Amino acid sequence: MAPVEGFGISVRGGVVAARHRSIGSGLVHAIGIDIGGTKIAGAVVSSDGTIVNEMRVATPARDSEAIVQTVISMIESLSATQVIAAAGVAAPGFIDVTQSTVYYTPNISWRNEPLRERLQSRLLMDITIDNDANAAGWAEYRFGAGRGCSDMTMLTIGTGVGGAIVSQGRLFRGGFGAAAELGHLRVVPDGLPCGCGSRGCIEQYGSGRALLRMANEIADAGGIGMVLAEARTTAGELDGIVVGNLIAGGDPGAILALTRLGLWLGQACASLSAVLDPEIFVFGGGVAVAGELLLGPIREAYRQVIPARGYHPEPEFIIAKLVNDAGVVGAADLARLHAGAS
Amino acid sequence: MAPVEGFGISVRGGVVAARHRSIGSGLVHAIGIDIGGTKIAGAVVSSDGTIVNEMRVATPARDSEAIVQTVISMIESLSATQVIAAAGVAAPGFIDVTQSTVYYTPNISWRNEPLRERLQSRLLMDITIDNDANAAGWAEYRFGAGRGCSDMTMLTIGTGVGGAIVSQGRLFRGGFGAAAELGHLRVVPDGLPCGCGSRGCIEQYGSGRALLRMANEIADAGGIGMVLAEARTTAGELDGIVVGNLIAGGDPGAILALTRLGLWLGQACASLSAVLDPEIFVFGGGVAVAGELLLGPIREAYRQVIPARGYHPEPEFIIAKLVNDAGVVGAADLARLHAGAS
Repeated sequence: MAPVEGFGISVRGGVVAARHRSIGSGLVHAIGIDIGGTKIAGAVVSSDGTIVNEMRVATPARDSEAIVQTVISMIESLSATQVIAAAGVAAPGFIDVTQSTVYYTPNISWRNEPLRERLQSRLLMDITIDNDANAAGWAEYRFGAGRGCSDMTMLTIGTGVGGAIVSQGRLFRGGFGAAAELGHLRVVPDGLPCGCGSRGCIEQYGSGRALLRMANEIADAGGIGMVLAEARTTAGELDGIVVGNLIAGGDPGAILALTRLGLWLGQACASLSAVLDPEIFVFGGGVAVAGELLLGPIREAYRQVIPARGYHPEPEFIIAKLVNDAGVVGAADLARLHAGAS
Repeated sequence: MAPVEGFGISVRGGVVAARHRSIGSGLVHAIGIDIGGTKIAGAVVSSDGTIVNEMRVATPARDSEAIVQTVISMIESLSATQVIAAAGVAAPGFIDVTQSTVYYTPNISWRNEPLRERLQSRLLMDITIDNDANAAGWAEYRFGAGRGCSDMTMLTIGTGVGGAIVSQGRLFRGGFGAAAELGHLRVVPDGLPCGCGSRGCIEQYGSGRALLRMANEIADAGGIGMVLAEARTTAGELDGIVVGNLIAGGDPGAILALTRLGLWLGQACASLSAVLDPEIFVFGGGVAVAGELLLGPIREAYRQVIPARGYHPEPEFIIAKLVNDAGVVGAADLARLHAGAS
């Protein structure tokens, strides 16, 4: 398969060797595949969430047939020398409640694609498919920030805002399988237009893209935004790395942008608490590496707007732990559980 | 017990007789109690949701001790001549996830009240407590509009807005037991002040009280509101009965108020779909008797703002079926299931 043999393969040799475990340890291994916009990550994952072996391949852009072939090749390759219980595939978009059909993916041309059946017919193991944010949230619940709790809500603050809900130890999928699209909670009536076709979604006020918009506004205003304005001139534009570095370096303008983002997210969490009442909120994605600088404003806004404040326990607000690996680890674990392997 | 013997008892004699069934039918009976702001309703309910026997008592206002005594007396009275599997008590407010403690009730002075223990110590049957909107939603799911579905979201449009969530056939309680407070989903940043201490909750835009505010605004504006203005002058003020009658009679001003209410509710449902993705939305409470006049604008607004419209199945929007009895029927059924009786 061209994508596996050619450009974009980046099996992390050293890491793989260091992480390798013998199958003799008694742990049941499963494969997790995470189809992203730029790369497809695959891994063999043990039942304690440890990555045993992993590989990455560039995503064949907008070629859904090539993506299917790549996923099959990766699963074959990862299972060639291992006993594998099952494989789970995580993809962006809406997946039906039976975990068989991709209704819709924003960046791949799948529309009512019977992905599970297509993979299952070519592979000799149990296959499940799931939404990528669900897989990442499940990994945090099982092996990361949500370990030991019963009800967790996760917001993934990347370019957009993704979500996952775990309740009573189960992934919450909703009636049609598309629950936990938390980025599309509406926070402003007739607000900023969103990629989903609606307006005022929290994704437009609480995502990495929103952070850059806020940083640009602060740069335009001068004063506290002077350093941001200078960085923009130097770099040509503000991107996540530039703004992230300024936040890490303590620049007041960049921190103000992050604070505004956190205040919006905290307000959204108050609404999510009224609906879901989780014990913990977990924040993942690139923006969440800001840690307490993000969590502080989130907690502040949450406490200001939570209904009937003080009349029941407050949830914890925590940063995710499995940043890059969450998708593959969660997809593998969901597949293992689906196949009935412990 | 004074409240049972005295003012406010309204056992519906004729109805009770008509509904009475012999225990010999083989159905397992449970008691449901619904503590409301003005009355406490109690009923013996069979396992198919039929009310076998019922009574109503005026709520001893703001006297929490008398409420407990009244509930005990009602359960004793209802179980005197019946074999009862369990009793469920529904109350407004936050109830902990173990269904033991009332954290907070808005109209009764319970704060961290160990209600279950207090009742259990005095009664010889299994007792459970639950939020009143949860009990009503559960009844709709089991015996009413939600029968046969897997994931249902219910909004109770009364004076305020209550909520209940059923997912995969289970009542969704959240991590602390206070999930599904759907009236406190925030729809307007810094919007109208809400009784919960926050602002902009859907309760301020989609409740019976909001309907009256909108009707008054339309009356004030003249024109289409002329009939509303006249009715207000005649009745002294617009209340639910006056506005309800005008809606039923086809008055364009009153219907405009209901339409505005429905548009807000439809927008809230789009957010709730992004989070919960139910197969059906059920609308209960006094305002829901307007039926299609309410559901029409709800569907219209929902379709306008739902994220990624058309890319997965649309939920159904349905009016509740068990309007007055839902609380007692749901409380009884939850108690029976909790006690393990089928």
